[in-house]
Formats: sequence, C-alpha cells, structure tokens
Amino acid sequence: MRIQVNKDRLLYHLLIAQKALSTKTPNPALQGIRLDVGDNELVITTSNSDISIRVTLEDDALEIEKTGSILVPGKYFIDIVRKLDGQVVSMTEGEDNLLRIEADRSDITLNLLDLEDYPNLQFKETDSPLEINARTLKSIIRQTAFATSSLENRPILTGVNVAIDGEDLKAIATDSYRLSQKRISLPESYDPTDVIIPGRSLEELIKILESNQESVEVHIDQNRVLFKDNNVLFLSRLLEGNYPETDKLIPQEFPIQIKFNKEQLMTAVERAGLLSSRDGQNSIVKLDVRQDNVVEISSNSPEIGRVREEIHPVDEIVGSPLKIAFSSKYLLEALRVFNSSEVTVKFTGEIRPFIITGEFDEGMLQLILPVKTD
Amino acid sequence: MRIQVNKDRLLYHLLIAQKALSTKTPNPALQGIRLDVGDNELVITTSNSDISIRVTLEDDALEIEKTGSILVPGKYFIDIVRKLDGQVVSMTEGEDNLLRIEADRSDITLNLLDLEDYPNLQFKETDSPLEINARTLKSIIRQTAFATSSLENRPILTGVNVAIDGEDLKAIATDSYRLSQKRISLPESYDPTDVIIPGRSLEELIKILESNQESVEVHIDQNRVLFKDNNVLFLSRLLEGNYPETDKLIPQEFPIQIKFNKEQLMTAVERAGLLSSRDGQNSIVKLDVRQDNVVEISSNSPEIGRVREEIHPVDEIVGSPLKIAFSSKYLLEALRVFNSSEVTVKFTGEIRPFIITGEFDEGMLQLILPVKTD
Repeated sequence: MRIQVNKDRLLYHLLIAQKALSTKTPNPALQGIRLDVGDNELVITTSNSDISIRVTLEDDALEIEKTGSILVPGKYFIDIVRKLDGQVVSMTEGEDNLLRIEADRSDITLNLLDLEDYPNLQFKETDSPLEINARTLKSIIRQTAFATSSLENRPILTGVNVAIDGEDLKAIATDSYRLSQKRISLPESYDPTDVIIPGRSLEELIKILESNQESVEVHIDQNRVLFKDNNVLFLSRLLEGNYPETDKLIPQEFPIQIKFNKEQLMTAVERAGLLSSRDGQNSIVKLDVRQDNVVEISSNSPEIGRVREEIHPVDEIVGSPLKIAFSSKYLLEALRVFNSSEVTVKFTGEIRPFIITGEFDEGMLQLILPVKTD
Repeated sequence: MRIQVNKDRLLYHLLIAQKALSTKTPNPALQGIRLDVGDNELVITTSNSDISIRVTLEDDALEIEKTGSILVPGKYFIDIVRKLDGQVVSMTEGEDNLLRIEADRSDITLNLLDLEDYPNLQFKETDSPLEINARTLKSIIRQTAFATSSLENRPILTGVNVAIDGEDLKAIATDSYRLSQKRISLPESYDPTDVIIPGRSLEELIKILESNQESVEVHIDQNRVLFKDNNVLFLSRLLEGNYPETDKLIPQEFPIQIKFNKEQLMTAVERAGLLSSRDGQNSIVKLDVRQDNVVEISSNSPEIGRVREEIHPVDEIVGSPLKIAFSSKYLLEALRVFNSSEVTVKFTGEIRPFIITGEFDEGMLQLILPVKTD
C-alpha cells in the first residue's frame, strides 16, 4: 500500500470513523482502523461491538500508487494525522508490518496491527431500502432517543422502537417513567417492519449525519440496520425481543389543557428543580392549576428550602383545577426537543400520565408519568 | 437584613467569590457564603482552608432597606441567582433563620446556615503593601506557577517562592525536574521579603484578577498574603519552611545555543511526544544537533513506532553537535508561556540542565533537566 492524500480530507473522514472506534475492548484488533486502498478509493473502517462505520474517500484529494489493506493503531494514527503539518500526507506500507507516514519535515513509523485479527464486517445493502430525508431522521432521533432507558435491567427499553407500515413510520422510546413518540408520513409505501435500534447507536449516528436535505438509505436486515449517507455507511446491531405495547398507556381524553410559553415553563421548572439535595437528578416539582387561571410550580425540600413560581398560561386554561407532581428532569428533557415556542400540556387526572404537544411539532407527543406525593 | 440588588451585578460578584467556596469540606459552614449588609455595601465572603475571598458591592445596583449578616448555602444560592428572571432580586431575612428571595414571578425560601459557625476571617491590610501592575502579576503567575510540584511529598515545592529585595522581585517555581524563574524591577524599593505562596492559590488568583493596568496591592503578613484588586480581597495562607537554594542549579555558561521558531519547535515536540503508551504523560523525546545545522527531534516507542522530525533553526547554530533527551511535556509547558515567537535554547552539556529564554520575555528563564537514555 502506498498513497498520498490531502491531510484535512483524511482527518475529516477519520473523525467520522472514530465514532465507532473501540478504546477499551477485550479485542485489541478493534482498537485499530482498517484502511483498504483500492484502485480509486481509500476505505476507512472502524467497529466496536455495537456499531461499525465505513467511510469511502475517493476524490482528487487522493493519489494511489499501490493498493493494499492495513490495520493501523487507531488512537495514535488519528493523533498523528491531527498534528501533522503540511497539506499532503504520504503513507507507505513497509516490510515487517510497518507504516511510514511522511508529511512536511515529519517522518513517522507506526507498528501495524495484524489485519487477520480484524472481524469480517458485512456492510450489506438490501434490495429495497427505506429512503428518508437526513434532517427528518435527525429530528426523529433527537426527539425520541433521550427517553430510552440507560439501565440494562430491561435491555429492550434501551432501544428506540421503529415501526413502519405502508407510509406510516412511528418511533417510540420509553424508560417506563416517560415516553416519546414521533410519527411521520413517508413519501412512499413500505412493507411492514418493526425493529428496535439501540438508543446509543442512534446518538452516535446523529453526530455524523450530514445536515443535508438529501435522503439517507436505511437498510433493515434480520438483526442489523445499515444507514447509508453519501459516502458513509453506519451499521448497528438491533435489539432482540418484543417491545412493550405502548398505545394503551397514552390517554385519549384530556379534560384539562393548558397552553404555555415553552421558555417560561422551562425556566420555572428549572428553578423549582434546583433545591434538590441529589444534584437535581430526580427532584420532584408540583404543578398546581389554580382557580384564578394562574399555574403555580413549586418544590419543597425541607433541608434546603422551597420554591414557588407563578406562570400565566398563554390562553385561558381549559378544565378544572388540578394538582400534579412529577420529575423536573423528565419535563425539562421533554420540553427541550420541541421546535414550537408554545406547548400544550394535556392532563387526564392527578394520577394519570400527562402529555405534551406543540403546534409546530406535528406527529410528536411526549408523555410523563406523575409521581405520588403526600 | 433586607436588600434589593441588580441580579447581574450580584451574580458577577458571587462568581468571583465562588472560587474560594468549599464544596467538600469537613466544616459545613464553609459551604456557605457569608453576606454582610452594611449601610452602603454588601460584602460577600467565602473561604476554604487555603484561600478566602471578600468582595464588596457598593453602587447604584444596591438598595439597602435593613442591614444584617447571614450565611447562605453557597451552591444553592449561586444556582438560584443564576437562573432567576428579571433585573432585580429582593432578599429578606425572615424568622426561623430563613431567607426569602423574590424576583419576577419567583418566590424562593432558603434555609440559612448558622452564622456563628463561620470562622472569623482577618482580611487585614498592612501599612506598606507592595504595589504591582495587575497584568504584570498575572504574567508572573502564568510563567511560574505551572512548574510547581503537584505532589505533596515535598510540600514546599507546591509553592512559588517570591523574594523581594529593594526594587528587585524574583519568582521561582520548581518541581525538581524543571524550574521557572521570572525577575522584574519594581517601580519602588521595598524591604527584603521572602515568602512561598501555594501554587494553587495563585492559579485561583489569576482567574479573578481583572485585566487592567491598575495596580494590585500585595499585603504580606507573617503567614498570610492578601491581594487587593479594587473591590476584591484575596487571602492565601503561606507555606512554611525554607525554599531550596536554586541559583546554583542554573548553569551560567552555554557553549551551545540554538534559536528556534517557537511554533515549529512546539509542533515537532508534540508529534514526537504522541507515541507514548502512557497517554503522552511523560514521553521522552531526543534532540540531536547535527553537523549540517539541522536539529532532529525524535522518539522511539518499541511497541508503537517512532517519530523523526527535522527543524531548521532560525539562525546558524552556535557550538558543537550534541544529543540530549527530555520530557516532551516539560518542554511544551515551558514553551507555552513565552510571549516571544522565537526562543533560544541554551545547552551546557548532554547531562546538564538546559535553559530557554526569549527576546520579548525579559527576566524570564525556563530550565529543564535532561533524562538519561541508553
């Protein structure tokens, strides 16, 4: 293998691939970055046990003198490329499994890893991928994945359930205390599919999706999903098992509805959440719909103090007075993903889940379970 | 106590005082911020075992209705003030050791701490303080404190030795592997003084010194030093003991001298330092002054690989060829504090300390001990 490549282009692509690079792994080969030089392209591959990334670089930034495949120590290789001076990096595979890297006045030799130890990754595309706008995909992930569980005691809840039926796509995440749901209409009709994608894979995917209007191909296989965004392939395992039936958790009738300015509601809940002795992790705040059309947000932490906030809703409150208590963290995380500047909070009763919707967030709902207080 | 105060001004001063706020301390009173409201001023005091800060707020941002002193829970108080809406915060001491905080539509009550438990801090000024330009003081700290030891086995080396004699001020820091020295001429003459100020205190001081041309007063007492910068008082304990005699460590004759472009030298040493298996913490690089007026920087890490860099010095090299090895971290930290874009590295011999000076860094020298290699 012998190539010359533009340093900035190489680094740009390495930093994409880095998202799937293992740092601590029982398999040392996964600390490596696989470089495959073909006749017209440099293919960069990384993998950890959950996700794998393959990026292809094929433009005038690249000059190939000899094809070949090597496995470079990932962390050191990226550190070196980042620090190199000059425009062009020259890489030459030498004898004794060594790689010589030359740029400007630097001459660096890296011991390569054994390519034979690298897993045989299948970035296999299917015949009929789902096509979805990259920005739409990013917003689905942003609006649902945060609500997945971070606990491994019910692994299925660490994933986002994506169900496709005809032109309808529904993404759901829940940790059993709150639930996020986003529904969109696809431009075409697809065969019914129902998969659970690890939330952490999606959090990594969102970082590398380009903010373009172009469509991303989604190839769903038996136990894997492959996202294809231009020259980037992103492969994730799927979670196995049955996702819980969530439709029946969502109330259908809401006798009490309040429209808030989102920022006002957030800052009031933030302040009420401050006085928790547990670093605000799960501080409980109370919401009190008063007779006088004012909403009171409050918290009480006997050791530290108490907070009382008053909010005037945007419109007249629909329904009767109500007192309800919930985790400030869950409400704040839910509010944060709305694009709307006004949100409607809809209540069924004091011990029933409540939901939040927004005029400019079509198809999305956020649900939160209240907590019981004295 | 009852006051109204501009929120942004209050927060600004709280964030200065926060630098000395204890978060983990055996004395819970030190987790508090002391507020003393006098006839015309609000005085904010914080302390941990090493440093104490006292900030005075007295301007039209403040309206005093009733004087008094309280001890507020520090972390919560700052968090609340930071998150408040509105321009003005109203604070009223209530019965039962409570503080009521009102702003916009927020109504917050905090349990106060017991003021009696707070230590009696003496921010005592001396009769003849040293006056020093704030920017000069910042640069002395920046150019020396990084070289103090972080190990507690020789506590004296965790401090910066400041010796004043007449118009001469000399600051020295060393961890016994490298040494930083900065010498300045004071505008006036002072009585001889020799103290050791904890490096960590100085690192905190530098964060709150305003970048002004005005002078800071330095009041040196028996076992404490008090810095006065406008309305901020910063008190630090001094380290007790005798600082080692360092003058004799510094070679006086340098048969080999090389002038480098600082950036070129830094990037070469950075790259050579990358291939350390211990995260670059103490990677050893070699410097080789060649016959052909080229300097080679190299490193070799048998498990990972090797780096070789060539640098053309700015001027013809003075002296004969030489090979020397040192910690890349120490050289990089020393180079980083130079204002000069060209630095001169001066060698006495392969196993003798070498020093670095810069044309636009008058009075400063950085010294590094070489390491022996095979």
